[in-house]
Amino acid sequence: MYVVIMAGGSGTRLWPKSRAAKPKQFHNLTSSRSMLRETVGRLESSVQPDDIFVIAGKTHMSPILEQLSNIPKSNLIAEPVGRDTAPAVAVAAAIVHKRDPEAIVLVTPADHYIADDAEFLRIVNVAGEVAAKDDVAVTIGIKPTYPETGYGYIEMDGEYSNGHSEVFWVNSFREKPDPATAEKYVSSWRYLWNSGMFVWSVKTVLDLFEKHAPDIYEGARKIADAFGTEHEQEVLDEIYPTFRRISVDYAILEKAEKVLVVPGDFGWSDIGSWAALHEVLSDELTPNVVIGKYAGIDTHGCLIHGGDRLIATVGLDNMIVVDSDDVLLICPKGRAQDVKRLIEKIEEEGLIEYL
Amino acid sequence: MYVVIMAGGSGTRLWPKSRAAKPKQFHNLTSSRSMLRETVGRLESSVQPDDIFVIAGKTHMSPILEQLSNIPKSNLIAEPVGRDTAPAVAVAAAIVHKRDPEAIVLVTPADHYIADDAEFLRIVNVAGEVAAKDDVAVTIGIKPTYPETGYGYIEMDGEYSNGHSEVFWVNSFREKPDPATAEKYVSSWRYLWNSGMFVWSVKTVLDLFEKHAPDIYEGARKIADAFGTEHEQEVLDEIYPTFRRISVDYAILEKAEKVLVVPGDFGWSDIGSWAALHEVLSDELTPNVVIGKYAGIDTHGCLIHGGDRLIATVGLDNMIVVDSDDVLLICPKGRAQDVKRLIEKIEEEGLIEYL
Repeated sequence: MYVVIMAGGSGTRLWPKSRAAKPKQFHNLTSSRSMLRETVGRLESSVQPDDIFVIAGKTHMSPILEQLSNIPKSNLIAEPVGRDTAPAVAVAAAIVHKRDPEAIVLVTPADHYIADDAEFLRIVNVAGEVAAKDDVAVTIGIKPTYPETGYGYIEMDGEYSNGHSEVFWVNSFREKPDPATAEKYVSSWRYLWNSGMFVWSVKTVLDLFEKHAPDIYEGARKIADAFGTEHEQEVLDEIYPTFRRISVDYAILEKAEKVLVVPGDFGWSDIGSWAALHEVLSDELTPNVVIGKYAGIDTHGCLIHGGDRLIATVGLDNMIVVDSDDVLLICPKGRAQDVKRLIEKIEEEGLIEYL
Repeated sequence: MYVVIMAGGSGTRLWPKSRAAKPKQFHNLTSSRSMLRETVGRLESSVQPDDIFVIAGKTHMSPILEQLSNIPKSNLIAEPVGRDTAPAVAVAAAIVHKRDPEAIVLVTPADHYIADDAEFLRIVNVAGEVAAKDDVAVTIGIKPTYPETGYGYIEMDGEYSNGHSEVFWVNSFREKPDPATAEKYVSSWRYLWNSGMFVWSVKTVLDLFEKHAPDIYEGARKIADAFGTEHEQEVLDEIYPTFRRISVDYAILEKAEKVLVVPGDFGWSDIGSWAALHEVLSDELTPNVVIGKYAGIDTHGCLIHGGDRLIATVGLDNMIVVDSDDVLLICPKGRAQDVKRLIEKIEEEGLIEYL
């Protein structure tokens, strides 16, 4: 199996650690390794470094080279601009297809947390077996544990049954729901979180693009043709900006006649906000999650994410405190989603050095 | 009139700006000048620099020299250790007495805020006239505006009447009250806040020490004898540590037969906590008091006291955020008094570099 790691995210809600110059995936948030290193690390036992491709912003190639020194430089795909996931998936598929037309690929974001690596790999293998046997896109869904409104959902249909008891047909992809709808989804067995992880043969996915997004298919083919030649970056820089900005779900999956999903239960989180990071890092034994130097009294349920300076608190509950070299963020946990609004405001005020 | 500025306070509740090496009085908190500079500045129109004495910790002489360059170095009294206000007042009185046995002295802390300098000077002059005419200690009381539990109170008795309609006899000095008692005090006309400012002739105050605290009187006399000679610091270092730790209120004022008080109403605050500073700096037009770089949404009633770094907040109400080079403090305004407990904890944990 091949792996395509999509490392182009901006992680704006994890500001001020996640910044334009060094977004979330390049930071050590859940362990002493960066999210990107964690993503590669959990696959290392199953996949050769030569078979791992990384697609990311051109300006982020240097942290990638630094953090993934074992992956060949020729496996890095440098986007001159971001165009959401569909162009990235198509380009990577075309490039892998050039290497191995029979390739089965796991597509995964670079910035997700997974608690149980072994169970994750088992699910990926189940998906891989199905994708190798049948000309079908397989998504990895996540059994929801609470009514999250920040995720898309996948509605399951009947069992796939082709020898695999834990694979289901996808009935529909659902947008991020309102709280009432999320409640309904979670109380039903039929809905899963959309993890943004897919397993498929490059043939299957290229066929889907050719049929449902031929413009993206054409561009991806041209980029793949030039990939590995001296014109590689030139062609990427020329064609990539012409792609429309569209997610892989919209571009092909919602239009595909048959899509499968494997429900996973391996302690997944997209760490989409400081509150989500707090959720992943907290345990029942310690009152606060603390990174860095801290001293406090009467402080509970807080995420204190600091550096060298001492963070001192009195009487704080359920707060997020993030201290970086040049910015300090303070926000109640329940307002963690509004960090996005905050940085919009900072941008409006022209404080672009802080983005 | 002479002035004795007591600049030995530690200002622990204004941590982490106020630190052992550079306490509150040396910081710009209410204006672009330090509290100490403000204290001298409001007296400059009435008092010659030569007639201003400053008593403070030996380790703080360098910020004093820097901030009060117009005051003669020979007017600085360097305490080798802190012994509360009684020894400081006695030593300063003895030293001023050596220069001018008829001197009338205003004794004032270095770290209080006064909004209306003209009214303050008027009250000081009223007190000075009384102190020059009668052998009596005069305290400056503050008309209370709310039931503060962090101040001592002065209970007034009948009017002094000796040609001064706004001077009263002191009936008693009261310790910091509990909230119910504070309410009672404030709803009565008879109680004033004890500002820690006094006006008296050096003769009067030395007589009071001789009678009620002869040990302190003796030590102060010996220090004054050596003051201005080559043995000045040697004698200070030898005798000062032998003083008991006691306030001027306890040592002489509560025991004196007659003490007067002049009620003042000039926008006074001891800036005894971050909440008190917020009170002084806030106005009704701006949602937060902000010093330094700040960006936020849905934030109200906060004191944001920063420096060079950007402080960013979402959804904060009535919080104190203080950012210094090496420490960050976050505390609800209602818990501002507990900063003292916090630094006790920091001391216990051995983080002494942050004190």
